Amino acid sequence: MPCSCQWKGKEDKMKNVKYGKCVRCGKTYEAVPNLTNCSCGGILDIVYDYDYIKESLTKEKLSKREERSMWRYRELLPVEEKTPAPPLRVGWSPLYEAPRLAGELGIAKLYVKDDGLNPTASLKDRASSMAVAKAGEAGAKVIACSSTGNAASSLAGNAAAAGLSTYIFVPSRAPKGKVAQLMTFGATVVSVQGSYEDTFELSKQAIDKWGWYNRNAAINPYLSEGKKTVGLEIMEQLGWKVPDYIAISVGDGCTIAGLWKGLKDLYAIGFIDRLPRLISAQASGCCPLNRAIETGEDWYPMEENTLADSIAVGVPRNADKALMAIRESNGLTVNVSDEEIMAAQKLLGSSCGVFGEPAGVTGTAGLKKLCEQGKIPADATVVSVVTGNGLKDVENAIRSCGEPISIPGDMDRLMQAFAERGIAVS
Amino acid sequence: MPCSCQWKGKEDKMKNVKYGKCVRCGKTYEAVPNLTNCSCGGILDIVYDYDYIKESLTKEKLSKREERSMWRYRELLPVEEKTPAPPLRVGWSPLYEAPRLAGELGIAKLYVKDDGLNPTASLKDRASSMAVAKAGEAGAKVIACSSTGNAASSLAGNAAAAGLSTYIFVPSRAPKGKVAQLMTFGATVVSVQGSYEDTFELSKQAIDKWGWYNRNAAINPYLSEGKKTVGLEIMEQLGWKVPDYIAISVGDGCTIAGLWKGLKDLYAIGFIDRLPRLISAQASGCCPLNRAIETGEDWYPMEENTLADSIAVGVPRNADKALMAIRESNGLTVNVSDEEIMAAQKLLGSSCGVFGEPAGVTGTAGLKKLCEQGKIPADATVVSVVTGNGLKDVENAIRSCGEPISIPGDMDRLMQAFAERGIAVS
Repeated sequence: MPCSCQWKGKEDKMKNVKYGKCVRCGKTYEAVPNLTNCSCGGILDIVYDYDYIKESLTKEKLSKREERSMWRYRELLPVEEKTPAPPLRVGWSPLYEAPRLAGELGIAKLYVKDDGLNPTASLKDRASSMAVAKAGEAGAKVIACSSTGNAASSLAGNAAAAGLSTYIFVPSRAPKGKVAQLMTFGATVVSVQGSYEDTFELSKQAIDKWGWYNRNAAINPYLSEGKKTVGLEIMEQLGWKVPDYIAISVGDGCTIAGLWKGLKDLYAIGFIDRLPRLISAQASGCCPLNRAIETGEDWYPMEENTLADSIAVGVPRNADKALMAIRESNGLTVNVSDEEIMAAQKLLGSSCGVFGEPAGVTGTAGLKKLCEQGKIPADATVVSVVTGNGLKDVENAIRSCGEPISIPGDMDRLMQAFAERGIAVS
Repeated sequence: MPCSCQWKGKEDKMKNVKYGKCVRCGKTYEAVPNLTNCSCGGILDIVYDYDYIKESLTKEKLSKREERSMWRYRELLPVEEKTPAPPLRVGWSPLYEAPRLAGELGIAKLYVKDDGLNPTASLKDRASSMAVAKAGEAGAKVIACSSTGNAASSLAGNAAAAGLSTYIFVPSRAPKGKVAQLMTFGATVVSVQGSYEDTFELSKQAIDKWGWYNRNAAINPYLSEGKKTVGLEIMEQLGWKVPDYIAISVGDGCTIAGLWKGLKDLYAIGFIDRLPRLISAQASGCCPLNRAIETGEDWYPMEENTLADSIAVGVPRNADKALMAIRESNGLTVNVSDEEIMAAQKLLGSSCGVFGEPAGVTGTAGLKKLCEQGKIPADATVVSVVTGNGLKDVENAIRSCGEPISIPGDMDRLMQAFAERGIAVS
């Protein structure tokens, strides 16, 4: 069926982008707005003209820019010059220095990037904002995806703000809270009585039939270009002083691949003079990508045994890009149990005032484990990215946080309770 | 009992603040960091030296400032010059222009201020950030409050980031999710087997006994000075062009009073040349302040019959300041049903991509009702403040959003479902 895209052709061509290139077979494609996968099935990477970018973007120019969002980095983004930034303010999330937590972990410096403060409360907003921009270029009025999680809510929110319609396919087991959020954003939600694979398949057929714009990080190569802005921001917020490590949770693989792409972009245009090592943190119960790195073998599917639902991806669709990123960066892998994840949630909350969802704090859990194993030098500077907000999943926090002190309204009972628990009040 | 405050005395005196003045009897007090209520029981207002401020702050100076948080407005805040801004990035939330929603409401211009994007997801972070700063000035290591809601979580988060301890008293009926968030932030949570009054009373005794810093908007006059930054930001984000109305939800009264204080500050130093009218939106089931305005009588307690829990305040403790703000601004009052509140949640989500909690969208619900009643001129410019994030309460969204389309994974069934619902796919 014909695509509804109304891309106007060469006259709008992006000057900073050369083409899309298959990460598997190397075939190149013109970077049209509705670019999808290579004919070989591989995912495309967007290839830039760094010489052109170097001429148009300098650190000084950037430092004077008022824009405080991911769209601050237009020269490094795959959009036409006239494409407007979508309405929701995505990105430029805070990077907090965390001296107490650094001390606890035994490292010199630690920074926490709280990407849970994006408009729909996760890093996925960076990809969805890009999807909305590219859908606009394509002349599409409708965007679709299949997902139960942060990708869906971020697409629904960002598209609603831009006046675009969304069709979102969820498996019938999707949590009601997430469906409610989608419907509040005005998405047409199709709950498919079947597995996630059935859901994905129906969405694919519908997208093909009606020519909707496809927001699927496994198919649309522009999405990881949106996600890379988290790396651009970290570096600018650090004054271009490169940390030794950046820790991040890994599920599908698109996020760590995007982060790495941003860092490589900055290296290519001379904004930074070296690259950090990535720390790829997965849940022990679902770590097909880390297993591939650790064994040196190809990745293969794995069960999804973790409460960190946003990274419970047994069949990662961005495996190629993610594995390349981890290997190129001489990265570390680390797998953490659900208990370690929930302990990291508490640790980040109590030491930094940052409340992350389980998948959001998995990078920090991994960092802690590596520190305990003596794998991170004491003089290291590390950035830990929190990818989603804890308010997305309070159920697990409830199960892990323990019980409060419960007493009648009486001072003697309060003092007794403090004494029993060894709480020294002063 | 002695206060643990170690305030160092006159040499640290704030140059921009004259004193605290009772809004009821007019008595003045030196503006020490641990200032509480007047001896007559009235709440104090912080009185500024606007001549001094005018000399130290200009619009041009402000426009060049890098800081993008509520601490951007230091000259207008009641802190000593050397007091550090607390770590969490509070404020500078986005102000979105909402042309489609403006059209739907039949007004010329509408802006939505999304304060749910603060670090702990509500406007209350502005007050808590101020509490943390003032506790620091007082030399206090512990802050306490009694609350079940946004005030508690924002205090716990902001204090944790600053390395301060918190003791938080909640009634035993407090939702488990909110308690879990507090405990994740490392707060010592005391669950009191009794009513909210029992809880408040025990917290008061404990605060008196141990000299903790008091984060209670009914007692600590600095908190509404933190909240006023929402008004400062709105005006700067509008380029100092004063809107005709600002709509906001009202519970305890501290927030609308703070908003008004910020606007009056800007008027006093000549940054704006007129003042907007406030729209005070309450839930029909709990509107003691609006009732007082509407009847011209004193306020008196009311039952708390609304699902908008953050504004279900039958005994508003900032009634004096709030009523003064509404009257001084020649404000409008409007009371909305729970159904109107939930409809506004959907409306904001689907037209603006902003997901607010029920209390957070009550201002928008009120604005919609006033528009329908013909009380807002068609040429009006209005700002609607969303005070908290919808992720704080997905239960009500679930109840109100309806059911998704539920089908097996089959294209014919999908087309049939669209046709039955009159969904024109293209």
